[in-house]
Amino acid sequence: MLHETVSAKGHLIDTHVLERIFDQILEHGASYEILRFEVGTTHADESEIELKITAEDEATLRETIEATLSFGCAVASARDARLVPIERDMCVPEDFYSTTNHRTEVRLDGVWRTVGAQRMDAVIVLEDGEPLCRKLRDVRAGDLVVCGVSGVRVNLEQTDGERATFAFMSNDISSERSVETSVKRVARQMRRTREEGKRIIFVAGPVVIHTDGIDPFRSLIEGGWVDAILSGNALAVHDIENSFFGTSLGVSLGTGKPVEEGHKNHMRAINRINHAGSISEAVRTGVLKSGIMHACVEHDVDVVLAGSIRDDGPLPDTLMDLIEAQEAYAHQLKDAGMVLMLSTMLHSIGVGNMLPSWVRVVCVDINPAVVTKLSDRGSSQTVGVVTDVGLFLGRLAEELRAAGD
Amino acid sequence: MLHETVSAKGHLIDTHVLERIFDQILEHGASYEILRFEVGTTHADESEIELKITAEDEATLRETIEATLSFGCAVASARDARLVPIERDMCVPEDFYSTTNHRTEVRLDGVWRTVGAQRMDAVIVLEDGEPLCRKLRDVRAGDLVVCGVSGVRVNLEQTDGERATFAFMSNDISSERSVETSVKRVARQMRRTREEGKRIIFVAGPVVIHTDGIDPFRSLIEGGWVDAILSGNALAVHDIENSFFGTSLGVSLGTGKPVEEGHKNHMRAINRINHAGSISEAVRTGVLKSGIMHACVEHDVDVVLAGSIRDDGPLPDTLMDLIEAQEAYAHQLKDAGMVLMLSTMLHSIGVGNMLPSWVRVVCVDINPAVVTKLSDRGSSQTVGVVTDVGLFLGRLAEELRAAGD
Amino acid sequence: MLHETVSAKGHLIDTHVLERIFDQILEHGASYEILRFEVGTTHADESEIELKITAEDEATLRETIEATLSFGCAVASARDARLVPIERDMCVPEDFYSTTNHRTEVRLDGVWRTVGAQRMDAVIVLEDGEPLCRKLRDVRAGDLVVCGVSGVRVNLEQTDGERATFAFMSNDISSERSVETSVKRVARQMRRTREEGKRIIFVAGPVVIHTDGIDPFRSLIEGGWVDAILSGNALAVHDIENSFFGTSLGVSLGTGKPVEEGHKNHMRAINRINHAGSISEAVRTGVLKSGIMHACVEHDVDVVLAGSIRDDGPLPDTLMDLIEAQEAYAHQLKDAGMVLMLSTMLHSIGVGNMLPSWVRVVCVDINPAVVTKLSDRGSSQTVGVVTDVGLFLGRLAEELRAAGD
Amino acid sequence: MLHETVSAKGHLIDTHVLERIFDQILEHGASYEILRFEVGTTHADESEIELKITAEDEATLRETIEATLSFGCAVASARDARLVPIERDMCVPEDFYSTTNHRTEVRLDGVWRTVGAQRMDAVIVLEDGEPLCRKLRDVRAGDLVVCGVSGVRVNLEQTDGERATFAFMSNDISSERSVETSVKRVARQMRRTREEGKRIIFVAGPVVIHTDGIDPFRSLIEGGWVDAILSGNALAVHDIENSFFGTSLGVSLGTGKPVEEGHKNHMRAINRINHAGSISEAVRTGVLKSGIMHACVEHDVDVVLAGSIRDDGPLPDTLMDLIEAQEAYAHQLKDAGMVLMLSTMLHSIGVGNMLPSWVRVVCVDINPAVVTKLSDRGSSQTVGVVTDVGLFLGRLAEELRAAGD
Repeated sequence: MLHETVSAKGHLIDTHVLERIFDQILEHGASYEILRFEVGTTHADESEIELKITAEDEATLRETIEATLSFGCAVASARDARLVPIERDMCVPEDFYSTTNHRTEVRLDGVWRTVGAQRMDAVIVLEDGEPLCRKLRDVRAGDLVVCGVSGVRVNLEQTDGERATFAFMSNDISSERSVETSVKRVARQMRRTREEGKRIIFVAGPVVIHTDGIDPFRSLIEGGWVDAILSGNALAVHDIENSFFGTSLGVSLGTGKPVEEGHKNHMRAINRINHAGSISEAVRTGVLKSGIMHACVEHDVDVVLAGSIRDDGPLPDTLMDLIEAQEAYAHQLKDAGMVLMLSTMLHSIGVGNMLPSWVRVVCVDINPAVVTKLSDRGSSQTVGVVTDVGLFLGRLAEELRAAGD
Repeated sequence: MLHETVSAKGHLIDTHVLERIFDQILEHGASYEILRFEVGTTHADESEIELKITAEDEATLRETIEATLSFGCAVASARDARLVPIERDMCVPEDFYSTTNHRTEVRLDGVWRTVGAQRMDAVIVLEDGEPLCRKLRDVRAGDLVVCGVSGVRVNLEQTDGERATFAFMSNDISSERSVETSVKRVARQMRRTREEGKRIIFVAGPVVIHTDGIDPFRSLIEGGWVDAILSGNALAVHDIENSFFGTSLGVSLGTGKPVEEGHKNHMRAINRINHAGSISEAVRTGVLKSGIMHACVEHDVDVVLAGSIRDDGPLPDTLMDLIEAQEAYAHQLKDAGMVLMLSTMLHSIGVGNMLPSWVRVVCVDINPAVVTKLSDRGSSQTVGVVTDVGLFLGRLAEELRAAGD
Repeated sequence: MLHETVSAKGHLIDTHVLERIFDQILEHGASYEILRFEVGTTHADESEIELKITAEDEATLRETIEATLSFGCAVASARDARLVPIERDMCVPEDFYSTTNHRTEVRLDGVWRTVGAQRMDAVIVLEDGEPLCRKLRDVRAGDLVVCGVSGVRVNLEQTDGERATFAFMSNDISSERSVETSVKRVARQMRRTREEGKRIIFVAGPVVIHTDGIDPFRSLIEGGWVDAILSGNALAVHDIENSFFGTSLGVSLGTGKPVEEGHKNHMRAINRINHAGSISEAVRTGVLKSGIMHACVEHDVDVVLAGSIRDDGPLPDTLMDLIEAQEAYAHQLKDAGMVLMLSTMLHSIGVGNMLPSWVRVVCVDINPAVVTKLSDRGSSQTVGVVTDVGLFLGRLAEELRAAGD
Repeated sequence: MLHETVSAKGHLIDTHVLERIFDQILEHGASYEILRFEVGTTHADESEIELKITAEDEATLRETIEATLSFGCAVASARDARLVPIERDMCVPEDFYSTTNHRTEVRLDGVWRTVGAQRMDAVIVLEDGEPLCRKLRDVRAGDLVVCGVSGVRVNLEQTDGERATFAFMSNDISSERSVETSVKRVARQMRRTREEGKRIIFVAGPVVIHTDGIDPFRSLIEGGWVDAILSGNALAVHDIENSFFGTSLGVSLGTGKPVEEGHKNHMRAINRINHAGSISEAVRTGVLKSGIMHACVEHDVDVVLAGSIRDDGPLPDTLMDLIEAQEAYAHQLKDAGMVLMLSTMLHSIGVGNMLPSWVRVVCVDINPAVVTKLSDRGSSQTVGVVTDVGLFLGRLAEELRAAGD
């Protein structure tokens, strides 16, 4: 039997972290012994624990420890992280350290250093002496990559004020809850994000158009609440089709009646933008006069449209090279303090993969399963809201305007 | 091979009725021949058709004709309805005529007479010489019951103005639609119902409470838009629990946080009403001071609470004898011109079974499957809305207030 | 500031109980101080904790303690339970103790006594000197009822072998999981229940009929795996309609094609049973020759059909008095060791309310929201399976036959 | 007022085509007059109609006629299709003819010619004198493109035997139906497709892996029933992760228990394939020894993996250039006679856009909303099945094996 000692410190009990550490150990088939446990006597106090983890073989032990690292444990003995030089592009050793989205430190020459560009499912490389996250596909021969579990530690984010709240939220997303409470909380977080000088990013699907979200979304853009929109071809085409023809996928937004079989207005809208050359040229030349895309051009809001296999057209602005699209998304998310995900599971999961855990995330969808799925993957600061997206945006715009008075 | 001639007249094509008649015939394994077909040349004109239906045996022929009756066909030859005297309570002959929810006439002594108390899944009895619908369980020995398909004809409702619209609605309920359009249509229908001097009935589930619907619902009650509420034990208990303790099933409506494990406030609320004797006594004695139930007592709105197998308590006002409950529901629905079904499949199906097809029905639920299921069973005038019920009620109350100015 | 000391003992950490105790205290607006905490050093060891709970007022303190009782805490000081005599039927003092579904003890004359007939949302009365759960509506003037939180303690069930597993299950019900694993676990639990001499109860909705579940369900009945079926009117009518006419709600099970508009076969089936007098008379006289109801009569399986507001007919066997129906359900559940809930939220919630937490519960539904809702209310031993009910029953019947060889 | 005469011929009534023609006209704000209507007197006979369509302006008239073309109408007067030379790549005139997925003919020099490469949302260009569908983005300066509605006609597919059935299916997808019936129909269609010498294509999501679908899918591949798999990165990675580590996204398929936080096995699997260079190299060198991907390599089944914005990794085989991916999909679909879509809305919509209406389509998903959405977009031959995908594949494999005996 092999063993290793790990330790953890923080709000271990009321954040449910301690139980998850124990769960991880048992689920890996390892066992534990508590060597030391100093419990904070009140809610405000931190606790500290030291655990001896025992496993039958090297791989189980390493994987168990790797799993507990994700919950803030660190190997107790003071060793540096192990750096292995890479021989071939995109190929790393089997025991490479695969990152979480939590703030991570690695020990180099006896000093704990914060890892840059934090994101999940990446490897840690040394670039100009600095440790940072890199996607596997961007690892190059000659890079030094962190392997094993020694000299790595993870800091779980603990925004004290909202701690208890979020523990609750993550277990209790429900379509049977008050939306008012959520709108107020989201507006509060948006203002706080602005005060911190951080960016607010919207990830939005075409449902925003179909549920009367155009006007409130424009109002948010005009109010300066939107730094970038990350989306796909559909949001832009539906918005532009509505601006040109008053329909969206052939359905009139005014009367709710379908106007035409066959999505022809959809293709006509794309054709017109093709004629102009791009969305911004269509705005500049007066072809496109209203809608969300128009507002983004007018107010210099960055829009990144990532392609998908189901795209018709697409618009000339849509990035059909996904490596390029993922990088454009990641670029926009660099200083994000808050991300609102509105009714698009595809793009939201893409964005979720790129985000560090300390970014505030809000998921809004009328389907509770989508909200649950996104919230589970999100940070500990995720707010999930099951409701009509258009009505939500309308209330949010009102709330932010009211606060502005 | 046996055959019979049936005929139908009306807006047969653009209401999709003709195709459904053909579908019914083929699905029963019978076949048809078109004897005469006079097509209305424009949208405004009615069509008229005469069909010869052929089947292999008596039962198939009868069942096929019975099915086409539901779509407005009638046996062409002029015969009276066949009346059979009943020998034992609740027991009718095998070939009894089972009703639809459409306006029905039976031919008696050569005269077509409208059937009273129209509802689906009933039998037609003669009471004081008048034909009317009666539930199977209420049929008594000695009653005369209509059997077979001769001398019965059904009139499909055709509210011209909204014909095309509803054909669309029934096939296209979607969470990706504008709620605004639906709110405006519902408000318009409510005003029209008032002008006609008909009653507006609400069927409401406890989700109304959890989604901030209390205030807008009170506003509708105070505005005189609610003639009766048909519901169950839960709506009332959650409303009263919220009025007493600010929670609903232990969740604080103000903060969205759960206050207590174990639903204890739920039981406490019931206990307090038990002490008072009934909801109205609790209002009269000043124990219950706010909420939907309070508003109903203050504004003389009838409330019928039907019990269910899952009820805790229940409140002293809840009817645990379902025969009594069904009759109390049916009594309230007598002169209903419009029914709004808010997030309760159980009670809505119960109500739907009792309604004739010419009553306007609105179904609101955040789950598209529920809206589809209820709309499919409803009249041709059903409006389905997939959205957050609380937000919907809020917008509806605003719309009706605006119109009142 | 008022305070009280509570203590708890058991597998507090890896069962997530400790965190929930802390959550409850904070959510009630109270605070805690850890006076003593002896942590079991390995997974096998129990822990023991002593907490001082502080609150601003009497009511908050009492409610906070009441909430922690649900998680196994008990007031540390040795006092007897307070018994209050009741003055009016169904009316108890405001501070009555409202039960959970966990095994509960009360201290009487210095001795801890186990409460009988354990169920949630009940009060504890003394009957012939024995403490037992009673529904609020059954409390009578003169009864002695437990009030307050002193002298009450709750024992959380801890089935060691499956502890870690179920912690996982409750957080991770998903339609994207292997059904095979669940079928094997359910079959294993059924065999264990039989070995313990306990009853196996099925709660089943009509979806069982529509999804080809009739044959496998018959096979379970014939194999002796079903002690009782708790259901409603619909399961029985659909089963009987299928037996008589080969349709269910007018849809042919053989071809999947609808045979008839208007549910007429549904009403015909009820009429035939009315003629016979009851389901068992219809079997005895040879009218009803196949299906689930037929198998139940043949194999002496108890069937309880509880009415609902939406019932057509109903069958003469359906209990339309819900007090009677709830009592008939509760009677069947008395020695239940396991309950399988198959696609019926209404009846399953009803049954869930009546069950003590140590009964094994299995929920099967194709809608993940239903499985989540039922599992959240269920015992710690709940297995949730998101799948097609008919296919599930087919695999379960195979698995149990295979094991029988 | 402007007008134009159109005519249509075929099974207009019982296929519901006639009503949809009328719906289209009214929804566009135009009106109609029936000039001639010869009704087939029995189910076997075709009908023929001539309609005069009247509208207020040129655009409305053109759009109305365009909409009726989709349902088999054609402008009655004999004119050639209008061909317009293109001036700039990807830019066509505003009145370009946008295709449906139905078999289309254009009239050139007085002769009706069938359009090649039929798909929806394309334009019709002349290539080497042949009319064929081309995506807007592939139109080049100098191409001749069909504009307006003259000289275009659409033939609705009418597979007699199954006509009534599918009319039913499209309106009645339900999770409450028998899966057996669907499995048998799908197996029958697969055999018929084989007899016709057409290809059978599977579009599959990762849920196939999580629901025990690996073995039955392998069985279908080994039985020669799978010509190509169109999917994304996830199906392949989850399959390969399971083959290497017995987990899928960190969940053990054997026990249903999660093995590891953080998806590390997922990244490890990609890393191993990176080392090998590609999936087929991994099979060839003995690194990858089991699973669906392994079976595809062994049995020369084409696999196309299209990238998406949410992809981790991706595998070296995944196409991250979507233009390339769409073309690879379209290439595989060229001689497809049947497509089975298994639990992946993203890729299924992509495939649906590329298919002509006469290809048989089967959609299987546990979520009824997905099945409805895909079936609505699909051909008239779509079979929708709401069930567990793994169980469905298991039954399908059994059914096809049984038939093989």
